[in-house]
Amino acid sequence: MTTNHPTAAILIIGNEILSGRTQDTNVKFIAERLDKVGIRLCEVRVIADNEKAIVETINALRAQYTYIFTTGGIGATHDDITAECLAKAFNVPLEVNEETFTILENHYKESFNASRQRMALMPRGSELLKNQICTATGFKIENVYCLAGMPTVMQNSFTLLLPNLKTGTPFVSNTVTCNLREGDIAHALTDIQNAHLNVEIGSYPFYRTPPDIGTNFVMHGADPIAVTDATNAVIKMVEQFGGTYTVDWFERKDESSMEGDTL
Amino acid sequence: MTTNHPTAAILIIGNEILSGRTQDTNVKFIAERLDKVGIRLCEVRVIADNEKAIVETINALRAQYTYIFTTGGIGATHDDITAECLAKAFNVPLEVNEETFTILENHYKESFNASRQRMALMPRGSELLKNQICTATGFKIENVYCLAGMPTVMQNSFTLLLPNLKTGTPFVSNTVTCNLREGDIAHALTDIQNAHLNVEIGSYPFYRTPPDIGTNFVMHGADPIAVTDATNAVIKMVEQFGGTYTVDWFERKDESSMEGDTL
Repeated sequence: MTTNHPTAAILIIGNEILSGRTQDTNVKFIAERLDKVGIRLCEVRVIADNEKAIVETINALRAQYTYIFTTGGIGATHDDITAECLAKAFNVPLEVNEETFTILENHYKESFNASRQRMALMPRGSELLKNQICTATGFKIENVYCLAGMPTVMQNSFTLLLPNLKTGTPFVSNTVTCNLREGDIAHALTDIQNAHLNVEIGSYPFYRTPPDIGTNFVMHGADPIAVTDATNAVIKMVEQFGGTYTVDWFERKDESSMEGDTL
Repeated sequence: MTTNHPTAAILIIGNEILSGRTQDTNVKFIAERLDKVGIRLCEVRVIADNEKAIVETINALRAQYTYIFTTGGIGATHDDITAECLAKAFNVPLEVNEETFTILENHYKESFNASRQRMALMPRGSELLKNQICTATGFKIENVYCLAGMPTVMQNSFTLLLPNLKTGTPFVSNTVTCNLREGDIAHALTDIQNAHLNVEIGSYPFYRTPPDIGTNFVMHGADPIAVTDATNAVIKMVEQFGGTYTVDWFERKDESSMEGDTL
């Protein structure tokens, strides 16, 4: 389905995800919020703290999507190489960002050592991305937003930058949870998908402890009426096949429940 | 750091991750287990249920890494397109896998409808990947392992296939959690990293409710003695800077605690 929504990719820079040590939660936080403002998240990549991988991936992604959000590698230690890699990717010098330097200097005072001064280095042309949690120095260069990996800091930075993005018609989605098995209704569901081409219909079976077996149908799109129509068609299908169901309608997903879901 | 470990990438095929609806947990499950058997996970990608994206990504990844693990798109409905995309990527016909057809036919009996028969279609040259939870039809073609997206099914399939992979020297990691701020010790930590080049040292600050502020140092590598040496050097550094700490040594991460951690 092609629409004129702005597009996005997320790049997680993090050995700690690739080694299995850490469960990433940054993708879901960003993805939910992009969806809500009508920016289509097209791709996520997780790569190692490795210069070649970061430079190549940034250059591949930034040419392809409206916005790129990176997380990780912002800090004072040897493994924090996002800023220098971005300078290489954009082929600009890495230089002191004066605004950032002043903020860090005022904050750290006599503890503003050489390692922390390194945190003020950004690719030429960057703007500081602030957060209200700590002095972590996220930055934006052209369409690439580099954020901290730490979830609390990333979430705060992202919330502050979100209102500045170019957005599209918000996406909405409804979920129908039923006790039918997807193989029994697959043909009928295909007919519904074909009759509602501007709605993405996903089918997600679950096998928990029997008899808790069934399928979630998710109807997702930018046209609320079309999403509602497709949802009603799915409900009718479930009834015709003798199933029982519950529906999570998009109207119920307000901001407060979304926060509760992810924090 | 270059080693002769087998390498891997994970490809999550899933609109439900990109829309923010679903929190992925498959990456951490697979990543932890690959690390433990000495297969280096180099990259993760999440892409949409889109033929062009799947075919191009599979071909990019399979040329680059020893193993590719995909999750999602295995099933009976219109959005399950992994098998046909893999046939296109490998440029082979999509055809009935007889073993799979027989298993499905015996299981579903009179419910073995056209949609479910579609689940027996695999790229020519595939082998069925079984699981003990349900009849989801994962398959392997050359170095690409296609698994279900449902965590319980994926986890069971992956556990069954893992002993058949070519492995390397297991990776181990220790974590030192301390109450120092990374900016204060960054220089000393760089010296430790430079003195232990076959250990990856990661620094992950945390800012929870003050005074619960500090840093996790993670020492990760395939040489347990080198990882222990680097850990002891970090502990000595923390003591020299007047910090307090706890250590999570790799010996304590046995299989049962890993299971508890992820399931």
